[in-house]
Amino acid sequence: MSANDLLAAIADVGADRTRGGYARHGYDAAELELRTWFVEEAARRDLDIEVDRNGNIWAWWGAPGPNAVLTGSHLDSVPGGGAFDGPLGVACALDAVDKLRERGFSPARPLAVVVFAEEEGGRFGVPCLGSRLLTGAIDPARAAALTDPAGITLAEAMGKAGVNPDHIGRDEQALARIGCFVELHVEQGRALDKLPGTPAIAVATSILAHGRWRFTLRGQGNHAGTTEIAERADPMLPAAATVLAARRAAASVAGARATVGRLIPTPGGTNVIASSVDFWLDARSPSTSDTRAVVADITAAARDAASAEGCELEVTEESYGDTVVFDSKLRDDLTALLGDVPQLPTGAGHDAGILAASVPTAMLFVRNPTGISHAPAEYAEIGDRIAGTAALVRTL
Amino acid sequence: MSANDLLAAIADVGADRTRGGYARHGYDAAELELRTWFVEEAARRDLDIEVDRNGNIWAWWGAPGPNAVLTGSHLDSVPGGGAFDGPLGVACALDAVDKLRERGFSPARPLAVVVFAEEEGGRFGVPCLGSRLLTGAIDPARAAALTDPAGITLAEAMGKAGVNPDHIGRDEQALARIGCFVELHVEQGRALDKLPGTPAIAVATSILAHGRWRFTLRGQGNHAGTTEIAERADPMLPAAATVLAARRAAASVAGARATVGRLIPTPGGTNVIASSVDFWLDARSPSTSDTRAVVADITAAARDAASAEGCELEVTEESYGDTVVFDSKLRDDLTALLGDVPQLPTGAGHDAGILAASVPTAMLFVRNPTGISHAPAEYAEIGDRIAGTAALVRTL
Repeated sequence: MSANDLLAAIADVGADRTRGGYARHGYDAAELELRTWFVEEAARRDLDIEVDRNGNIWAWWGAPGPNAVLTGSHLDSVPGGGAFDGPLGVACALDAVDKLRERGFSPARPLAVVVFAEEEGGRFGVPCLGSRLLTGAIDPARAAALTDPAGITLAEAMGKAGVNPDHIGRDEQALARIGCFVELHVEQGRALDKLPGTPAIAVATSILAHGRWRFTLRGQGNHAGTTEIAERADPMLPAAATVLAARRAAASVAGARATVGRLIPTPGGTNVIASSVDFWLDARSPSTSDTRAVVADITAAARDAASAEGCELEVTEESYGDTVVFDSKLRDDLTALLGDVPQLPTGAGHDAGILAASVPTAMLFVRNPTGISHAPAEYAEIGDRIAGTAALVRTL
Repeated sequence: MSANDLLAAIADVGADRTRGGYARHGYDAAELELRTWFVEEAARRDLDIEVDRNGNIWAWWGAPGPNAVLTGSHLDSVPGGGAFDGPLGVACALDAVDKLRERGFSPARPLAVVVFAEEEGGRFGVPCLGSRLLTGAIDPARAAALTDPAGITLAEAMGKAGVNPDHIGRDEQALARIGCFVELHVEQGRALDKLPGTPAIAVATSILAHGRWRFTLRGQGNHAGTTEIAERADPMLPAAATVLAARRAAASVAGARATVGRLIPTPGGTNVIASSVDFWLDARSPSTSDTRAVVADITAAARDAASAEGCELEVTEESYGDTVVFDSKLRDDLTALLGDVPQLPTGAGHDAGILAASVPTAMLFVRNPTGISHAPAEYAEIGDRIAGTAALVRTL
């Protein structure tokens, strides 16, 4: 079954009726349905399924053992996300297994397709949760206590999905088996499409330093009609000032980005001055020092605006990852193997970025003609999906 | 049963577990429970119940007829609202009926206690929906098609509650029976508490001109990490600029208020540039011309900011009400009757403000020591609640 047919088979799972695109979040009904689908597709290929201590699913071709070649990606999405971010890497990996089988290929080293849990952090707030737990990049107790918007903890959600949350954390045994990890992913910009000849495939060089910060502003909820302007402590004002400050701070540092895409006033009534506002800052840049400086700028602006309005500010770092430079030998080997394909940096975080600290890791990008990602317009052309599978076949 | 006991009996209905205070919205489970409670309390007092064509509940003492003295208020709340805005006026009215009965009072004119539907507009967006329909201040077809956040129309919600939505609209027969309407309400500022002697009761003079406008900004949803700052069309930027512009515009006009308390980015992911943002502007001032000028200023600022970011803007007026000056004879009669109590203007909209265009109308305010309203800290002291009932007893 081609990557295209595999993607078509899950095209209805977790469709987001209000926002468009998909809502597939770690251990929710849609993601669990996709996990079941993956297990069935792996079984159909006689791959041996293993769910590790951190809820990641491994499908083995050959006995699990050292020096394994690992590929795969994730099945969850951002809210209202596209069809390719995650599933493309999983579908091309299964497709590559088929293609290799058809050629009578028998792997000299063990080979596994992996599905990482909650890569987007769309439910529990921390991205790459499955790979962070596997590599010990997040404290297991902190992870277990993370909550979704309904107050359900990760531990509860894992338990309900049949994964015992008492044993999460760095898994030396699982890591020791990995010889290298190659993640195929839809490109999340339009760099390939802008290159002469619009190549289908690129090899990743690096990932920006990036993190997420939660800002909570507390003021005084009151009546929007009776409360005079001079008597207000309206947290929407410093929140708005911070959104504008984030743009200014990012624009002043080369290669930096700062985004507020999630903002929740409480109680959220039209004729009510909000009593509090929570919003999340996503900030990235090529270096940790620049990223930290951008966030410090934004925090200072938020503090000034909060103080001017008589509001209180609390800032919490929810996740942070330093700049990742992928293994240079693996990168150059892949580039040569795939016929001198381009090399590209990316601003997006990936499980591959987390694994890179523990094992030799590389990424392949598949051209995205719209350049749009994390939105329904995200796309990979069918020919390029085939090229993706072919690249993985050569790689594996 | 005292107003205090009546309020205590409903203290648990519709408690808002996430925001604090209450979530009681037109025809939702909590408001329906309160409507049933009101009908039972009215029946216990041998009042005759009538649900009018627009879903407002009338409890009659004496045969419904012309020249009736009407009192009452509403039972719904803003999201996370206080316990007194609405229910205080209903509870004091029932209490006043008891006190009059105890004195052996027999009304010369028919007397009715009314509960208006969806006064806050917390579910269907338009405030004073029951009184607007009754007086013809809103087009019935437009009202029937209003939707709540889940997409349920007012017509559907009314039908489910047993009120036929085919007959909504101005009700001449119901209006012809009203001799005058006196609404008792918790004060939504701290004017009484700041006066010498902290009087318990005031008579209302006027209501600010006020309305609600929905702003929709559309940009390009994309990935927060891979999309360079220069390539963005992020609707959060013009939304934030508009929140700040609203404050500036209101602060520059005497007595004006402008508030954004409800703002929803879509899809609302931390690592996602929003594709659209909806927010609601609540704007008020002592005159229609000033209110219109403030809204025009804010809209122009929103348009400029949208254009600078490559976003589209759509602005819809959801409701508007001109300045209300309450009937001066009724107002002065009440002031004298109640012992020269203070007279106060208010910035809050009320069903009394809607009815004032059709029948002689007055309002009584009960002191609110916190000055806070539309929030859990809203309060009326027990002694002042008794004073509220006493004032209604004298009035009726």
